[in-house]
Amino acid sequence: MGAPERIWNHQQENRTRRLQRAAGTLGADLAGKQCPAARIADLMHAVLEPGDRVCLEGNNQKQADFLARALAALDPARVNNLHMLQSVLALPEHLDVFDKGIASRLDFSFSGPQAARLARLASAGKLNIGAIHTYLELFGRYFIDLTPRVALVAAQSADRYGNLYTGPNTEDTPAIVEATAFRSGIVIAQVNEVVDELPRIDIPADWVDFVVPAPTPHYIEPLFTRDPAQISEVQVLMAMMAIKGIYAEYQVERLNHGIGFDTAAIELLLPTYAASLGLKGKIASHWALNPHPALIPAIEAGFVQSVHSFGSELGMEDYIRARSDVFFVGPDGSMRSNRAFCQAAGHYACDMFIGSTLQIDLQGNSSTATLGRISGFGGAPNMGSDARGRRHVSPAWLKAGEQARAGSNRIPRGQKLVVQMVETFREHMQPAFVERLDAWQLAEQAGMAIPPVMIYGEDVTHILTEEGIANLLLCRSDEEREQAIRGVAGYTPVGLGRDKRMVENLRDRGVIRRAEDLGIDKRLASRDLLAAKTMKDLVRASGGLYDPPKRFRNW
Amino acid sequence: MGAPERIWNHQQENRTRRLQRAAGTLGADLAGKQCPAARIADLMHAVLEPGDRVCLEGNNQKQADFLARALAALDPARVNNLHMLQSVLALPEHLDVFDKGIASRLDFSFSGPQAARLARLASAGKLNIGAIHTYLELFGRYFIDLTPRVALVAAQSADRYGNLYTGPNTEDTPAIVEATAFRSGIVIAQVNEVVDELPRIDIPADWVDFVVPAPTPHYIEPLFTRDPAQISEVQVLMAMMAIKGIYAEYQVERLNHGIGFDTAAIELLLPTYAASLGLKGKIASHWALNPHPALIPAIEAGFVQSVHSFGSELGMEDYIRARSDVFFVGPDGSMRSNRAFCQAAGHYACDMFIGSTLQIDLQGNSSTATLGRISGFGGAPNMGSDARGRRHVSPAWLKAGEQARAGSNRIPRGQKLVVQMVETFREHMQPAFVERLDAWQLAEQAGMAIPPVMIYGEDVTHILTEEGIANLLLCRSDEEREQAIRGVAGYTPVGLGRDKRMVENLRDRGVIRRAEDLGIDKRLASRDLLAAKTMKDLVRASGGLYDPPKRFRNW
Repeated sequence: MGAPERIWNHQQENRTRRLQRAAGTLGADLAGKQCPAARIADLMHAVLEPGDRVCLEGNNQKQADFLARALAALDPARVNNLHMLQSVLALPEHLDVFDKGIASRLDFSFSGPQAARLARLASAGKLNIGAIHTYLELFGRYFIDLTPRVALVAAQSADRYGNLYTGPNTEDTPAIVEATAFRSGIVIAQVNEVVDELPRIDIPADWVDFVVPAPTPHYIEPLFTRDPAQISEVQVLMAMMAIKGIYAEYQVERLNHGIGFDTAAIELLLPTYAASLGLKGKIASHWALNPHPALIPAIEAGFVQSVHSFGSELGMEDYIRARSDVFFVGPDGSMRSNRAFCQAAGHYACDMFIGSTLQIDLQGNSSTATLGRISGFGGAPNMGSDARGRRHVSPAWLKAGEQARAGSNRIPRGQKLVVQMVETFREHMQPAFVERLDAWQLAEQAGMAIPPVMIYGEDVTHILTEEGIANLLLCRSDEEREQAIRGVAGYTPVGLGRDKRMVENLRDRGVIRRAEDLGIDKRLASRDLLAAKTMKDLVRASGGLYDPPKRFRNW
Repeated sequence: MGAPERIWNHQQENRTRRLQRAAGTLGADLAGKQCPAARIADLMHAVLEPGDRVCLEGNNQKQADFLARALAALDPARVNNLHMLQSVLALPEHLDVFDKGIASRLDFSFSGPQAARLARLASAGKLNIGAIHTYLELFGRYFIDLTPRVALVAAQSADRYGNLYTGPNTEDTPAIVEATAFRSGIVIAQVNEVVDELPRIDIPADWVDFVVPAPTPHYIEPLFTRDPAQISEVQVLMAMMAIKGIYAEYQVERLNHGIGFDTAAIELLLPTYAASLGLKGKIASHWALNPHPALIPAIEAGFVQSVHSFGSELGMEDYIRARSDVFFVGPDGSMRSNRAFCQAAGHYACDMFIGSTLQIDLQGNSSTATLGRISGFGGAPNMGSDARGRRHVSPAWLKAGEQARAGSNRIPRGQKLVVQMVETFREHMQPAFVERLDAWQLAEQAGMAIPPVMIYGEDVTHILTEEGIANLLLCRSDEEREQAIRGVAGYTPVGLGRDKRMVENLRDRGVIRRAEDLGIDKRLASRDLLAAKTMKDLVRASGGLYDPPKRFRNW
């Protein structure tokens, strides 16, 4: 064709040059793939180039914190304009890189603890947000249009060849490393220790370029630990309604719970209230869930057959090892989590997602974005949306689909149960129900194309408050939907604005069900129903196997 | 609590007993993890138990065919009532196990070549179908309620420790092995050869229990090879309409193509027709796609930036190796595919799925199930459904969402483009458009709870035939939708039943667009537009790097 021959292996050649620079810089300090911690800045300056897409492993639990600190300490004159890819922004260093001009663009999923600072940096023009994603969506883009050039990950240990043991908190590591290593990228892993023999290999050495023993073990946040002592009687009441009005009603066997005290209360009511209703073996047997300590009593009572996890939870290691029939453990006895597979399972193999939110509007759209905070979504959009590609049936899925389609001539199809659980007023007496989500104003401020909605009203099937359950599947018009929501919004302005006659009509039709409609005596909603009332109760229920982090102990 | 202590490690203990039986039976024949092919029946009898859930690796390309034959040759008096889990039923042995009474239950995704026999066996009561899934859904269930007890997988090679190199056709192997190995299951891998050093490690030996060198290399079906010589001028016309009326209209950069000549025609028109419209660099740059040979001319023309693959394609190995900027290859130069990640990417990171089907009804529901054939879905439901958990924006996604919501007060949201491409009459002059899908009758015959729909009308955005494009996003009622479909159904009974005035009105509104409405001169729709007209042209375009399987060569 006459044209000069095109080069098709730029990335491989560029990778080779980076590795050569690293070898040249580190010299004899580089032992195989192992780089000493003291030379991390030299290693990073050698392998990073301005404008690189860099995936820094920030999970919602495990953090590549040593590498994050090292990155934030680089010279912005040499390394700049990085495009950061990250599941979770959890540490100050995750934003320091933008403040210092080392990075300028960000694609992420969740920023809980850094949400306010992220919003400030964004409005100060210090960073450009590509998009907010749900985890599996971000992983998907790693293989399409956001493939990392360099990945900075965290593992428990490495052997001298560079094989990695990620241990119970495997989390995002396999997805990040696979996308990077198989597109001629460079993978740097911080490890807590280098050992002669790993308990097992989670990531083969072939996929890893450099291993750095970090001066301190990587940070892990015990994000899924909820002290039962903080569960209120309102939460007990809501949990009773959830169990009787939704779990039992739809025979929900396979499910995911969001984080929070609302769902912890449900977990702690399974061996007591749910058992008293004869539901053992009929509901909540198969889970996509981190090893929540609050699930221990239900496991011990034989409610739970199986738990696959996104990550692990600090203090649960020995308990998991001793309950290998329930958790996914390797031949070595420790758990392997995997956020990508667990999200896929949560999306496609679960019949229900139930979680809390901050704001719900009159269409049922919910968002955790509030003014001045860009907090992201985590896994909620993936698990809290109808899995339209699902084709296998279950009683729960078929019943939800039938309710949604009754009276229409559409072809039959099931539907996932997506339950939003919220008290009508949240902290500081802020109403949870609003005419207009803060997300609209945030979108304007931050120049987003559309408001950041966590779960769309179209995907929500039930809203549960202390006032009752609104079953949106049974609503036949936008107006009915609005009144069903107002009908469980209590004394908030949205609740007070309800059409009383219409709400009573919806209640007659079972679209709204209050505690008494479900045959629940509110006076029984006491903390006595909790299978564990304290952290110490959880430890006791585990036969002493659960070892909570210090901050959760007062004994 | 007084009760006898519960045992929590049944599965680990049972696994140990199975491994001990294998060691006892095989004795000195077992060298480390390596079992000779001649003893495969003894190994299987030792490790399998009646009622086991067994995942037999049947991909849509790579087959664990040696293990499939061995399983089908077992003694049904000793091994029976197996519950088979399988992506694809491709080989006769995959059904022989049911015929012989070795297995009795099946959960699967696709059964193309075995669809008729599967239907016969099901109606004869020889097997009980749990459900038909899309791939990622089935993988999800491996981690929730369908975890395999024993996995029978295929790899290219192993080393003497049991590490596996799966090579370019990695496909399902990582998902199957991870689910099995980390729930105290047993993993048996057939390999083509045992070598001293693997090109790279794809599956660590810790995850593998037995390696069996098979007497012949595992079978791979070149499923994605389409000979350009068989592309018709009608298909060229449809491809022109797709490119101008959809790809350009929505600026579709990230996409997946289904299998078939319809989409192969599009691939072959990118460097010619699409380039002539100035679309290079503007459409079809990032792909979730197997390495289709028909994509070679578009790659060579610089249209394609990136391709991540579910599996590989026979004959493409050298070409892939030489185009590492485009494909996902390891440091060793060979590709790593991964069906789970590619399906996640196809679902969440692509703006469009376009594929063919067999039947479409008046609501736009489509199905490949026809009477007497239970063929399954493969990846289509996952990729051909709106990704409701997606939150990042792109021009294509936003435009589709705006069209769907124009005039409503619903909160803004994007939507995936899902295009069904079909000629109005398929083989043997069967109309592709029907009043009622065969799937209804099949559901009755096979006792399914709901008809097996491949892609639901609710998720379809465009139907493309030689008569034009029906844009279902713009339809504002069920009636408009029906007439839009009739309007592109040509001379089929469904097409002849259209309301002519309404169809003309839809055409005026741009809901239906015919070739002339798109400014396409039908006389130009000739095979001359194909960038390659023969297999030999593809080889030439690849610079001789593509090496087609023999059956596709006539030179």
